[in-house]
Amino acid sequence: MIRNTKMLYFPMYNDKYGKLVPVEANGNVPFDVKRVYYIYEVMDGMRRGFHSHRDLQQALICIHGSVKILVKTPFEEDVVCLNNPQEALWIGPMVWREMYDFENDGVLLVLASEHYTEDDYIRDYQSYEQEAKVFFNVKEKRTYK
Amino acid sequence: MIRNTKMLYFPMYNDKYGKLVPVEANGNVPFDVKRVYYIYEVMDGMRRGFHSHRDLQQALICIHGSVKILVKTPFEEDVVCLNNPQEALWIGPMVWREMYDFENDGVLLVLASEHYTEDDYIRDYQSYEQEAKVFFNVKEKRTYK
Repeated sequence: MIRNTKMLYFPMYNDKYGKLVPVEANGNVPFDVKRVYYIYEVMDGMRRGFHSHRDLQQALICIHGSVKILVKTPFEEDVVCLNNPQEALWIGPMVWREMYDFENDGVLLVLASEHYTEDDYIRDYQSYEQEAKVFFNVKEKRTYK
Repeated sequence: MIRNTKMLYFPMYNDKYGKLVPVEANGNVPFDVKRVYYIYEVMDGMRRGFHSHRDLQQALICIHGSVKILVKTPFEEDVVCLNNPQEALWIGPMVWREMYDFENDGVLLVLASEHYTEDDYIRDYQSYEQEAKVFFNVKEKRTYK
């Protein structure tokens, strides 16, 4: 995994009544959940995201179908395929992300540590790269790994 | 709608990149989100829930397929069919609930105002009925409607 990303694993209660996966804020996700959103009905060939956050932490969970997530810093990149509701991709600050290949009616649930703030987004890759180089080199201790 | 239940409606951002529904804790859901869980792969004919909570508030959102929710007090009952990710069924304290007819690969996302506490559950209908009669008659002002 690249810096400021990791996988989280959740328990599942599975019986004849179906499956239930519990996620506790400040428990098996390591932050307050102030915002939740879900992305669905993403057509074949569509790719979305294309931004980084300055401070936000998120947990990305694919709760139906599958989806691929490209995570990237100026120094490295990784593709994570999410297709298991018991797994989340945690993304910390200053990681570029793109989401694509939503398959089998893919639904991506995102839990976020803060309310929506446009100031927290970096949407231009060149600007991101410059800011991330400073962030990771100068403020290495702010990484969460 | 019966007492201590209501529908919540969320915005949706819909463009060529897909659909996104944002839910803000203490915003368009009226509580801190301390716990999130999701229920899926519920077989035909299975019915689950069969409990009430003493204090918990929840928002139930069907983010894939459809599901029916029976909500019930000692005085009234209602069936809500959830099949739209922009809608949530808010359930306040002391409402009995049963979930069934998970169709088209139904996935039910539940946002909860508190962490899991077994003491908050009432799992026996007779006990629920007794406690709810006291709750609603004597402490009517604790209802959230």
